[in-house]
Amino acid sequence: MLIVQKYGGSSVADKSRLLNAASRVAEEYKNGNSVVVVVSAQGDTTDDLIKAAGDINPKASERELDMLLSTGEQQAASLMAMALNGMGLPAVSLNAWQMGILTSDSYGKAKIEKIASDRIKRELSDGNIVIAAGFQGINRKGDITTLGRGGSDTTAVALAAALNADKCEIYTDVEGVFTADPRHVENAVKLDNISYDEMLDYTTMGAAVLHNRSVEMAKKHDVKISVRSSFSDSEGTYVCGEKSFRLVSGIASDSNVLLVTVKGISDIKKECAVFALLAENDISVDIVMSRRDSGKLRFTVSSKDMAKTERALAGIDYEINDCLAKISVVGTGLETNPGVIASVYKALEEENVDMELMTTSEIKISVLIDKNDKDRLVKALHKKFFE
Amino acid sequence: MLIVQKYGGSSVADKSRLLNAASRVAEEYKNGNSVVVVVSAQGDTTDDLIKAAGDINPKASERELDMLLSTGEQQAASLMAMALNGMGLPAVSLNAWQMGILTSDSYGKAKIEKIASDRIKRELSDGNIVIAAGFQGINRKGDITTLGRGGSDTTAVALAAALNADKCEIYTDVEGVFTADPRHVENAVKLDNISYDEMLDYTTMGAAVLHNRSVEMAKKHDVKISVRSSFSDSEGTYVCGEKSFRLVSGIASDSNVLLVTVKGISDIKKECAVFALLAENDISVDIVMSRRDSGKLRFTVSSKDMAKTERALAGIDYEINDCLAKISVVGTGLETNPGVIASVYKALEEENVDMELMTTSEIKISVLIDKNDKDRLVKALHKKFFE
Repeated sequence: MLIVQKYGGSSVADKSRLLNAASRVAEEYKNGNSVVVVVSAQGDTTDDLIKAAGDINPKASERELDMLLSTGEQQAASLMAMALNGMGLPAVSLNAWQMGILTSDSYGKAKIEKIASDRIKRELSDGNIVIAAGFQGINRKGDITTLGRGGSDTTAVALAAALNADKCEIYTDVEGVFTADPRHVENAVKLDNISYDEMLDYTTMGAAVLHNRSVEMAKKHDVKISVRSSFSDSEGTYVCGEKSFRLVSGIASDSNVLLVTVKGISDIKKECAVFALLAENDISVDIVMSRRDSGKLRFTVSSKDMAKTERALAGIDYEINDCLAKISVVGTGLETNPGVIASVYKALEEENVDMELMTTSEIKISVLIDKNDKDRLVKALHKKFFE
Repeated sequence: MLIVQKYGGSSVADKSRLLNAASRVAEEYKNGNSVVVVVSAQGDTTDDLIKAAGDINPKASERELDMLLSTGEQQAASLMAMALNGMGLPAVSLNAWQMGILTSDSYGKAKIEKIASDRIKRELSDGNIVIAAGFQGINRKGDITTLGRGGSDTTAVALAAALNADKCEIYTDVEGVFTADPRHVENAVKLDNISYDEMLDYTTMGAAVLHNRSVEMAKKHDVKISVRSSFSDSEGTYVCGEKSFRLVSGIASDSNVLLVTVKGISDIKKECAVFALLAENDISVDIVMSRRDSGKLRFTVSSKDMAKTERALAGIDYEINDCLAKISVVGTGLETNPGVIASVYKALEEENVDMELMTTSEIKISVLIDKNDKDRLVKALHKKFFE
C-alpha cells in the first residue's frame, strides 16, 4: 500500500513530537507499506522567518519571502529523514525542485500545476521513505514559490493524486473535523465523515482544519483524506464523496475579515472598475453586496490583504471596517430549508447580537457581526443545531 | 566592472551587520558596477543547525546534513536581497540549483566542477544585483551538497572565475592576512600581498582566513582575491601571483589535529592497506611519518574525522593522541635556508617546548607539540621572524 502522511508544524514542533511522528511513519513502513511523508515547518518557524524578514524590510517582495520561508520545510524534512535514519530506516528528504512540483508563477499563494514524480517513484522503488518538504513549489522561471498558509495539506493531496496513493492522512493537533472549533465550543462534536463540498464551504468559512485548495484538489482527483491527530490513536474524520452527510455540518467563524464600503457607485461600470483594480492586485473577495440604490458597494476581503487593498483603492472614496467577524452556518440545501435561516435569526435575537450584513447560498449562511459577539453567537448556534 | 563580493557569517550576523554589508554592495552598484554577492549563513546558524541535527540523530547522514545546512545560506541570501530591495535596489537571491553550481558527489565537502552561469548572467543583464547562497552546490544525483567549512569563499572565487569578474573581494571579520593570528599574537603584521602558494600553505596549516579550495581555485583560474574587513575601510590583503613575496610569510597553528600511531607495520603492503582504508572512508591525511624500523606508521588527521578514523581502523592496533597542536612556519625555499629550521629549533629550546615530531618541506616547517605550549611557541616564532 502507498500511504501519504502529512504532519503539520505542531506535530513536528520539537524533538519529542518529531520522533513521535517518525515512529508513526516507521510503523507503516515496517508493515510493508511505501510511505511519503509531507512535513510543514517546525512550530513557529514560519512566523519567526516572517518576523526576521519584516525586521530587514517590512515590504519584502513575495519572491524573496518565498525563498526565505521555504527553508522552514526543508529543515523539517531533513530532520525527519534523520529521525527515521536514526531508527534504522532508509529515508531521504526532497525539496520541491527535486520532486518537480511545478506551480503557477504567483509567489506567496502559488497553485500546483504538475508534479513530475519520477524522482519520488525512484526513491520509493529503491525502498526509501520519501520525506517531502511541504508548502513549496517551483515556477516556470525556476524560482521557489510557496502555496500559502496551510499549503502543506495541498502538497500532500497533490502527491497522493500524482502517485495514486491508497491513503492520504493529514496529521494535525486536533482529532478531526468538528461541528465547531472545539477550543471555543465545548460541546463541539467530531464528524466521522464530511463531503468535499461541505468541507470546502467549511474551510472557506474559516475553519482552519484543512487548506482550502487541498480540498479542491482532493475533490478533483477523488483523493480520500483522513484528518486525524498525531497525538492520539482515535479515528479522525474522512473527507470524501459528493453526497452530503447532513443538513448543517458545522459552525465556522473567521475574525480575519475586513468589510470595505465603496461610495459613489452609480453604475455597473464603476463597480467593474473596482473589481478590476482588486483583480489586478491579486486580492480575493469573499462576500459581495451591491446596492445600486444607495450608491454603495460593499465587499469583504481577508485582513492580510489590508495594505494591498488600501494601495489598490487609493484615490477612491471608501471605508474599511476591521471590527467584524464572520460567522457561517455551513450545510447543504440550506436555501430550501427556511428553518435554518429562521434559527440563525432566532439566535441573533436571543443573544441580542446586531449584524452588519447577512448572505445566504445553497451551502452557507454567513453573518457579519461585531468581533466581541463572536464566541457568544457561535456557542448559541452550535447549541441550536447540534446539542 | 563586474565585482564579486563575499560576506562571511560574522559580516551578516545580525540586522545592523547585514545592512552594513548591504550598503557596501549598494555603493558599488550605484557606481555603475554589476555586483554578485555571495553570503554565508548568519552568525552561529550553521552551528545551531548542526546541533539540532545531532539532537535528532548524532549519526545523521551527510546527505541530510547538507540538505539541512544549506538552508542557512538560503536564508541569509534572501534577507540580503530584501535589505537591498529596501534600499530601493533591484536584487534577487539565488540558490545553488538556480545558479547551476554542479559539484562532485561527496556530501559535506563537495568540489565545484562546473557553473552553468546563464541564470546569473541573465539577472545581471536585467540590472539585478545577484545574491548567491554560498557553501552549496548540487551533484549529479540532483541532491544538495555543501563545500565544507568556509566553502562560501570557494563559491565566490568559482563565480568570479565563471563570470570573468574584474574583482573578487572576500569580506571577513579581520583586516586581511596576518603574519600570525592577531587575536593571539599582538605584534602580528598585516600583509599587503601574498602569493597563491604562500596562502595555500598558510591555509593548509590552519590559518582560517580563506578556505583552502578557494585559493586553489583562484590560482587555477588566476582570480585575484582581496581579503578585507567588512567593518573598516582599510585596504586588505591581495592574494595573487606565482612569485613569493618573502622567505617566511607567517606562523600558522592548528589545534584540530590528531596524531594516529599504527603499530605492527612490517612492510609496505600493510602500510598500503591502512591508507586504502583511510581513502575508502574519505579521510584526509596531513603529515605522514613512516619508520619501518620501529614498525610504526604515524600520521595526522583532522579532529573532525575522529569518529570516522576509529571506524576505519577498527580491528587494527593503533593509538590516537588528541593533545597535540601543529605549529607551522610557512614560507618559500625553506629547505634551502637552513637558518629557518635552526631558528625553529632555537625557539623550541628557548621556550623549553618538547616536540612530538617535525616535518619539513620546501614551503613549510611543521612541528607537533603539546596543545598547552601552542600560544607560547607561536609568539616566540613570530618574534624571531617578524619583530
